[in-house]
Amino acid sequence: MTYHFSKVVDASFEAAIAQVTEALKQEGMGILTEIDVQAAFKKKLDIDFRQYTILGACHPQTAYQMIQADDKAGVLYPCNVVVQEHTDGRIEVSAVDPLVMFLPVENPKAREIAIAASQIVQRVIDRLAAAQPNATPHEYAI
Amino acid sequence: MTYHFSKVVDASFEAAIAQVTEALKQEGMGILTEIDVQAAFKKKLDIDFRQYTILGACHPQTAYQMIQADDKAGVLYPCNVVVQEHTDGRIEVSAVDPLVMFLPVENPKAREIAIAASQIVQRVIDRLAAAQPNATPHEYAI
Repeated sequence: MTYHFSKVVDASFEAAIAQVTEALKQEGMGILTEIDVQAAFKKKLDIDFRQYTILGACHPQTAYQMIQADDKAGVLYPCNVVVQEHTDGRIEVSAVDPLVMFLPVENPKAREIAIAASQIVQRVIDRLAAAQPNATPHEYAI
Repeated sequence: MTYHFSKVVDASFEAAIAQVTEALKQEGMGILTEIDVQAAFKKKLDIDFRQYTILGACHPQTAYQMIQADDKAGVLYPCNVVVQEHTDGRIEVSAVDPLVMFLPVENPKAREIAIAASQIVQRVIDRLAAAQPNATPHEYAI
């Protein structure tokens, strides 16, 4: 079961975050939280990790419907988009698939909302330009 | 399938957030994000919602192991704890069960980490004092 929509993008790490932010906005989603995992691992574990940021996005109307359908559903929010730099310099964007994320909420209304949310998130990833399959990673191409 | 550990607590909304924060700390977890859902729904949808806060918690060592096991697993982070006020004044705390949350990550190592994380989160909820079954909601008892 694939639980995310992912794409290797034609952008630097910072540009990918800006593009994701814009793509989310185009689909009516705002960013509520941002976790700099690289910084957190350095601070808490003194481990040098690659660039890895978790953007916590939200489609307010959908979230409202979902929490009304199941008042515990907030434990599964927000809808996260990870931007990560791989060791070879490729930048990959991965968004959680709400359809899979909300599977444990066994409620027909929740299922319907999750299907709609999944389509929104799929469109966010569709809006990002993919890197060419054999392209030199952007970070090295500068 | 229950995807959360929940308890109606003997505390006001603000005290419950303080108690959850302390219980998380006792189990080695820190809070990375906080979403005031009531404020977000007011701002984005102009809807008056009851008090509902999502605390995004993290056990750094466990998160590091999980992201190493599957580099997309970050889309499922952090580990959320919801504190909500019900319409009758009861305050309920719900933490996501990492065992259920990470089920889509089909990887034996991830499963092992999720089992350990689930036990940690269960202990966080165990640390909170439950409200007496027939007690007057704390908010009204003041």
